[in-house]
Amino acid sequence: MIVTVTLNPALDLTYTVDALVPHGTHRVTTVAERPGGKGLNVARVLHTLGEPVLATGLLGGPTGRRVSALLAADGVPASFVEIGGETRRTVAVVDGSAATGFWEPGPAVTEAEWSRFTDHFRQLLPGATVVVLSGSPPAGPPPSVYAALIVHAREAGVPALLDTSGPALHEGLRAGPALAKPNDAELAALRPGSPPPAGHAEIVEAVRAVADGAVVVSRGAAGLIAVVGDEVWECVPPVALGGNPTGAGDACAAALARGLRDRTPWPDLLADAVALSAAAVANPVAGAFDADVYRRTRAAAKPVGVSGGSRARLHR
Amino acid sequence: MIVTVTLNPALDLTYTVDALVPHGTHRVTTVAERPGGKGLNVARVLHTLGEPVLATGLLGGPTGRRVSALLAADGVPASFVEIGGETRRTVAVVDGSAATGFWEPGPAVTEAEWSRFTDHFRQLLPGATVVVLSGSPPAGPPPSVYAALIVHAREAGVPALLDTSGPALHEGLRAGPALAKPNDAELAALRPGSPPPAGHAEIVEAVRAVADGAVVVSRGAAGLIAVVGDEVWECVPPVALGGNPTGAGDACAAALARGLRDRTPWPDLLADAVALSAAAVANPVAGAFDADVYRRTRAAAKPVGVSGGSRARLHR
Repeated sequence: MIVTVTLNPALDLTYTVDALVPHGTHRVTTVAERPGGKGLNVARVLHTLGEPVLATGLLGGPTGRRVSALLAADGVPASFVEIGGETRRTVAVVDGSAATGFWEPGPAVTEAEWSRFTDHFRQLLPGATVVVLSGSPPAGPPPSVYAALIVHAREAGVPALLDTSGPALHEGLRAGPALAKPNDAELAALRPGSPPPAGHAEIVEAVRAVADGAVVVSRGAAGLIAVVGDEVWECVPPVALGGNPTGAGDACAAALARGLRDRTPWPDLLADAVALSAAAVANPVAGAFDADVYRRTRAAAKPVGVSGGSRARLHR
Repeated sequence: MIVTVTLNPALDLTYTVDALVPHGTHRVTTVAERPGGKGLNVARVLHTLGEPVLATGLLGGPTGRRVSALLAADGVPASFVEIGGETRRTVAVVDGSAATGFWEPGPAVTEAEWSRFTDHFRQLLPGATVVVLSGSPPAGPPPSVYAALIVHAREAGVPALLDTSGPALHEGLRAGPALAKPNDAELAALRPGSPPPAGHAEIVEAVRAVADGAVVVSRGAAGLIAVVGDEVWECVPPVALGGNPTGAGDACAAALARGLRDRTPWPDLLADAVALSAAAVANPVAGAFDADVYRRTRAAAKPVGVSGGSRARLHR
């Protein structure tokens, strides 16, 4: 099974209102509740694809129990460690086409809780084919949290996919994950003194400056660039799609995790990841995707090798 | 004990943000959770005053259980009927001084649930000294819900205080509550063809057009006007207070309920209600009040009889 780790999940509430009026009072016409957090989106996408998956991480309080119940209702296998703090909520207020977001701070995690999670994670590794480490770490543990999990995974022979940002990404990259998936802004933020990389060559150079291992950079409508040692591959979505970009990165991570497990050749893997991302954009709900868009985009996506051979494979 | 009825309670969430930016994303700096709903505010004010009180009404789902837990943490005695629907949330986003509110729709109540609540309410009546019926009724039952409860209370010899609006107020007034407490806008809405009453005489005339029994009209900073048969009493707050007017009406209702129980003479009762309302404005949290402001305002409030004798007493 693919194990997805969500250390700072959320209960996502989406409120529909007629029009947002600052300092006004709004009757909410519809309320949607969903399990939130990048790792949970990855798990839901993989589960919808029929892939064996297990969601783990930290949940606490009544809001945490609600997230558990919503995952169970979706049929997503989960095994979370309970913490004393309360899982956060997010509220997205949608009027017409645009959303206004309010993000509660997540709970702080104690050293004892973090230690219990580490033990739990290590117990899951013998059954894991890949681990996916997604999103921001909680307050409490040091930014090396993902680095520690990557080391445990490698010791168990399980490849790790890292999808985070800031210090947690910086520290995590030093632990040598099998693959990292920053977006272009997250990549740029790793080198605060340098101008943001704009073209291919600059992105490849930026990746090589911060990582030794394989990296896939997601660039929104500009698609994906994979840098694997000397090889560079690129795949651009065949058509521009309007929709909700939230969750597109998580769908991309789901495809990459499956590819890590199956040692899928890079061109096929990038085409799959581009197609699943586009299919997530076409669905308004994060963690869900449009199956028709997935099938059509996958057939049309044409990955190209910018340098290196076409038969390159992903090394664990 | 004073029984407060809240048919459509809520979990009130208050989010603090730096500045509300429509269609932006906001990190919430603080989150406050409170039991919400007018009847619960009345119960909390009475409990803080040391008065025996019991909160009842309808609660459902995990959000309902959270409201129960928060009431228990405050020490407020409660006995709610559980419904299948989920209790609503409200979200107030505060930036600087002003709030932007989002109100979830409440759950619909089935005929069977309403019948169970009516039975529960009737079982509470032998121990009740006063019942307070506050806020909007839920979707499901007809607008005569409060009227039915008022009739049951009267049959049990328990005076009812009605604090609602619209059709529920219209129907409730016809059932003859011991006292009704509309604000001036709610009073005006009962006579859609007529201009809103502005001065004393117009308010008294409007009350007499819609109600036979005792009515206290709350007018914000302009204070309270009581119309009891031929008598009219008025009390204006001695000083204008800035603050949060949410919950001031509920503090007013709490004072009126206590006065109904104690058959407090109208001048004293109006002074008490004005002072407790002002003390609620001085506290940013609905259902709470500033004890110093209460004491000072009560000493300074000077009720006047607009007509009728000074020894008038409230008739049950």
